[in-house]
Amino acid sequence: MTDRMTFGSPRPPRSLAPEVPVALVYDGATMAVMMASPMDAVDFAYGFSLSEGICAAEDISEVDPHEVEGGLDLRIWLRPGAQMRQTLARQMRPGPVGCGICGRESLAEALRDLPVLPALDFSLSAEGVLQAVHALPALQTYHQATRAMHAAAFWNGERLIALREDVGRHNALDKLAGALARAGTDLSQGAVVMTSRISVDLVQKAAALRVPVLIGLSAATEGAVRRAAALGLTLIANAGPEGFDLFSAPERVKGELSHVS
Amino acid sequence: MTDRMTFGSPRPPRSLAPEVPVALVYDGATMAVMMASPMDAVDFAYGFSLSEGICAAEDISEVDPHEVEGGLDLRIWLRPGAQMRQTLARQMRPGPVGCGICGRESLAEALRDLPVLPALDFSLSAEGVLQAVHALPALQTYHQATRAMHAAAFWNGERLIALREDVGRHNALDKLAGALARAGTDLSQGAVVMTSRISVDLVQKAAALRVPVLIGLSAATEGAVRRAAALGLTLIANAGPEGFDLFSAPERVKGELSHVS
Repeated sequence: MTDRMTFGSPRPPRSLAPEVPVALVYDGATMAVMMASPMDAVDFAYGFSLSEGICAAEDISEVDPHEVEGGLDLRIWLRPGAQMRQTLARQMRPGPVGCGICGRESLAEALRDLPVLPALDFSLSAEGVLQAVHALPALQTYHQATRAMHAAAFWNGERLIALREDVGRHNALDKLAGALARAGTDLSQGAVVMTSRISVDLVQKAAALRVPVLIGLSAATEGAVRRAAALGLTLIANAGPEGFDLFSAPERVKGELSHVS
Repeated sequence: MTDRMTFGSPRPPRSLAPEVPVALVYDGATMAVMMASPMDAVDFAYGFSLSEGICAAEDISEVDPHEVEGGLDLRIWLRPGAQMRQTLARQMRPGPVGCGICGRESLAEALRDLPVLPALDFSLSAEGVLQAVHALPALQTYHQATRAMHAAAFWNGERLIALREDVGRHNALDKLAGALARAGTDLSQGAVVMTSRISVDLVQKAAALRVPVLIGLSAATEGAVRRAAALGLTLIANAGPEGFDLFSAPERVKGELSHVS
């Protein structure tokens, strides 16, 4: 641990958030290397595979995390006969999930080809959105210690049933998706709540996971709103204890809403 | 513009932050595609080239931004005889700058091989850090409108001489570096102030740019602190109007500091 010095008023004691290089290695071949927090590594391997469309949860035979010098090797072994759904030519290109378009070779490929979400597969009340937001902080164990972690949580219509954290917001969503998939939870029957801003890549990951509602505590980008509308995903942003903004597919949210723009 | 609906107490009117796929194309070959805000695109092309070690500013003959369907093509033309400093085999791999390790193929490559910064090339007072932090918000034009932009600014010891914004913090730093390089500013004689958390990749970009002091308004990760210490970069985080934490290379900061851990 490096010495910390301080200037000015006493700074609250904090742990530093862990962040190490993590390699995702499928059947012995490295597909991506990115910076991530090392906890919940098996969830991460599952969720990344799903949200990036590499394989289904049932295609994975084993995830074997190895601590290696300066980082973490996530060795993912597919079941005999299972095949990666992305062509190697495209997906073998390593890259982080930082902006969610890793491995895309052109602007045309930057926006992934994803099916539109089915309408009204799931709905929630406006009050439910506030309840989900309200329930989040108590579960952010790592963030409480570090003040430097993003969280992604799943609201099943009644309560938050899982929450995962990471220094990278995309990784937090991947870990959550992996945890839910491993538990057999149907991701199409709930909403994902994220502490972060909502950008295009998070919308694409959510749509790829068939999550119908994405709630952000911070702002959404213009690209995210446009992409969510095109994919039929309900995008809520600026969500706080007092209210929220709803940008797309509003039919999944029940309650008194007013038009502001 | 998609309709915005709102629930609860009136939400402040906000513009949505622009975020589009941007391709960096060197002499006709796409090196990276990432999500970014399209303003200050020429600065971005210069800064990305410098911070990723692709070429020097003087190697660039022209940057030609083209709006294309759904995004922006940044066509970068090198001067005759100028060569990219990264091998194509490694750098042609496309990827975003999201976590700053784009194009790395293994854990060993995730941490870039960078020279240690020279000691005491630049120093600033503890009061100077607070002044730099204090001066930041007034310059965050896009963030004021959107509440969804990161900013990177350069403190020359007396004042902030440039600030750039982007939905991606790495892009904000790249735009700032490009703007300074184009203006002929010596990046080794000042500090970069960022609104975001400080992760490994930002430390690496700063070190590659020869910026000796990196100040974050939010927290730093454990990896960032370790990497900054190894590279001799002065890393300050949790910087607010009342004080800050100093994690590495403290000799560049003058003033009364106290040890807290």
